[in-house]
Amino acid sequence: MKDKGIGIVETKYFTFAEPGQELVLASGQRLGPITLAYETYGRLNKKKDNAILILHALSGDAHAAGFNQGDKKPGWWDNMIGPGRAFNTDKYFIVCSNVLGGCKGSTGPSSINPKTDKPYGLDFPIITISDMVNAQKKLMDYLGIKKLLSVTGGSMGGMQTLQWFKSYPWFLSSAIPIATALKHSPQQIAFDEVGRQAIMADPDWQKGDYYNKVKPERGLAVARMMGHITYMSDVSMEKKFSRRMKNKNYSYTFKTDFEVEGYLQYKGDSFVKRFDPNSYLYITKAMDYFDLSGKKLVAGADGNETRFMVIGFKSDWLYPLYQSREIVNQLKYRRVGVTYCEIPSTYGHDAFLLEVDEQTHLIKHFLSSVYRNEKDGK
Amino acid sequence: MKDKGIGIVETKYFTFAEPGQELVLASGQRLGPITLAYETYGRLNKKKDNAILILHALSGDAHAAGFNQGDKKPGWWDNMIGPGRAFNTDKYFIVCSNVLGGCKGSTGPSSINPKTDKPYGLDFPIITISDMVNAQKKLMDYLGIKKLLSVTGGSMGGMQTLQWFKSYPWFLSSAIPIATALKHSPQQIAFDEVGRQAIMADPDWQKGDYYNKVKPERGLAVARMMGHITYMSDVSMEKKFSRRMKNKNYSYTFKTDFEVEGYLQYKGDSFVKRFDPNSYLYITKAMDYFDLSGKKLVAGADGNETRFMVIGFKSDWLYPLYQSREIVNQLKYRRVGVTYCEIPSTYGHDAFLLEVDEQTHLIKHFLSSVYRNEKDGK
Repeated sequence: MKDKGIGIVETKYFTFAEPGQELVLASGQRLGPITLAYETYGRLNKKKDNAILILHALSGDAHAAGFNQGDKKPGWWDNMIGPGRAFNTDKYFIVCSNVLGGCKGSTGPSSINPKTDKPYGLDFPIITISDMVNAQKKLMDYLGIKKLLSVTGGSMGGMQTLQWFKSYPWFLSSAIPIATALKHSPQQIAFDEVGRQAIMADPDWQKGDYYNKVKPERGLAVARMMGHITYMSDVSMEKKFSRRMKNKNYSYTFKTDFEVEGYLQYKGDSFVKRFDPNSYLYITKAMDYFDLSGKKLVAGADGNETRFMVIGFKSDWLYPLYQSREIVNQLKYRRVGVTYCEIPSTYGHDAFLLEVDEQTHLIKHFLSSVYRNEKDGK
Repeated sequence: MKDKGIGIVETKYFTFAEPGQELVLASGQRLGPITLAYETYGRLNKKKDNAILILHALSGDAHAAGFNQGDKKPGWWDNMIGPGRAFNTDKYFIVCSNVLGGCKGSTGPSSINPKTDKPYGLDFPIITISDMVNAQKKLMDYLGIKKLLSVTGGSMGGMQTLQWFKSYPWFLSSAIPIATALKHSPQQIAFDEVGRQAIMADPDWQKGDYYNKVKPERGLAVARMMGHITYMSDVSMEKKFSRRMKNKNYSYTFKTDFEVEGYLQYKGDSFVKRFDPNSYLYITKAMDYFDLSGKKLVAGADGNETRFMVIGFKSDWLYPLYQSREIVNQLKYRRVGVTYCEIPSTYGHDAFLLEVDEQTHLIKHFLSSVYRNEKDGK
């Protein structure tokens, strides 16, 4: 039978933290009510032991796989999720949740502040990766999941994966952090900060109070263009663009001469149509604050039986391999079971979205082994 | 005797390309009159065979060494130029020229267009690295220099060095291109283009017509902040900043939390005080257009006796070592004499400004050898 993917899917919404039951954030502030957008693929079995939580990166959303009604493009990790795929929906129940602070159906700075009946803007509290995870835990409880077979994600999705282990170490049978880090280096913070400054420098930003007015599109586009450079590698850019030109000769103007310029402008322009500039600020800040370095990840993990598979990519210079190795070293330090896979990709950081075959091979076998192990243990 | 540097120096100005004698640019356009700001250190000897031309990078200027009257900081390569230094002013006559298109005393987009009596703005023609070099050649002629003992510079200064060899192969006894490339890769073009887009996205840019109005400072600051990340290395940023914070705890706001953020903001803000946004556009465009790849550098170099020393830095990811090796390979292909030096610096691209001891050692001996050789040959 041909691999047909999972077809039409629908985004669902879960609301909690109603008045009086607000979520207490890392900052000490309280936030509620909170809605999380999420999607599920496959079926939760009777034992409820086949659930896998998939977590997205900076600009991702709950729509990881299949097609939303009317869409021409599938979800962001569709090539990894479906019948027979790495995350096999014939076997597993997959949940993907949009992050708190986002702009894709979950509560974030563009949501209505119940206290003012206007969008939060900068009145939205600063959120952290642990806040995101705490919100996801509420969703897991709501779905009746007592333990996750696995948690996984690339980039910021990997940070959430690590945070899940830190916050709820007994809730996971396994974890697959991909192309991620225990903390942002100053270089990673710096790229985030330049993106934020580009947005905040846009006069349309208006200290975050631009809803129902003009969106700071130019600032967000610049932030995204820069981001795109960091997601690719020198080699992958050379392969994709080299110095190919739009026209035969130099224009001797500031119009687009090189294909790579046009590509970045297109990526910047299309991003502003689908993303909220304030969410970009909040989510990058959450990433910069994230820090499970040193022994923080594994403190209290003695005797924990969660099994890890850490995946990194050779050409990823935004989240270099040494950061993956630091995760592995910390896990080994407390004898948490860990397999480490370096994939010799040339795609740079984007590899977690593009290296389908290698990741499928690794993840499929890892999950089978964890699943078999869990069943045998019961 | 203690090394005292060269003391007080003065910037001079040379104007040429008067009406009827305009410089014909690579674009086919004509430009004139043209003023070049330049400084000289040391004395031209009677034989006029001890002159060295030093060329600056994107944001540099003619003031390479010593102190301008009233200044507290010396020129940008002061630690390399002076009595007993790498470029020994007791032996050599050093010339440093600001580039055409710049904003430090040379004709550029902020200069007055004689046709309109207003600043050029975007009416300034696109200039190339070869246009910069052609203008410098006029300065050399004016100074009575028949042949240069050496030409050198880092980054864009290295591009000009290579272009000098291409345009005037018989005018140089030696050349020292540092931390540079035969052409920009798509990644390098991409970083430049994001910088340009940041400037042009600033509403104050006004299609370049902002003189006597408000300068697009925010756009230029963002461009510079991003640039700074690319000039440093992951390691040098870790050493300089790590995750050190401005205050003890996270602010849970979008104010500066990490020292690296404050540093970049400071660098961006101070840059806008001393640099013209339009010059940033013109100069980065010149770098992106530059292309002496393949056999273009050495075509017509048969029998040429110019001696090269190519210097690259291990942690320079903006101009990676493979680009230095490409220069070396092309030179060897036509049997041009070349010494290749990889310096194991952790400073990234900025290393050409910071690795003084290593470069001094290499350059001092190289220049002595070239000078001795030239004298013996006469």
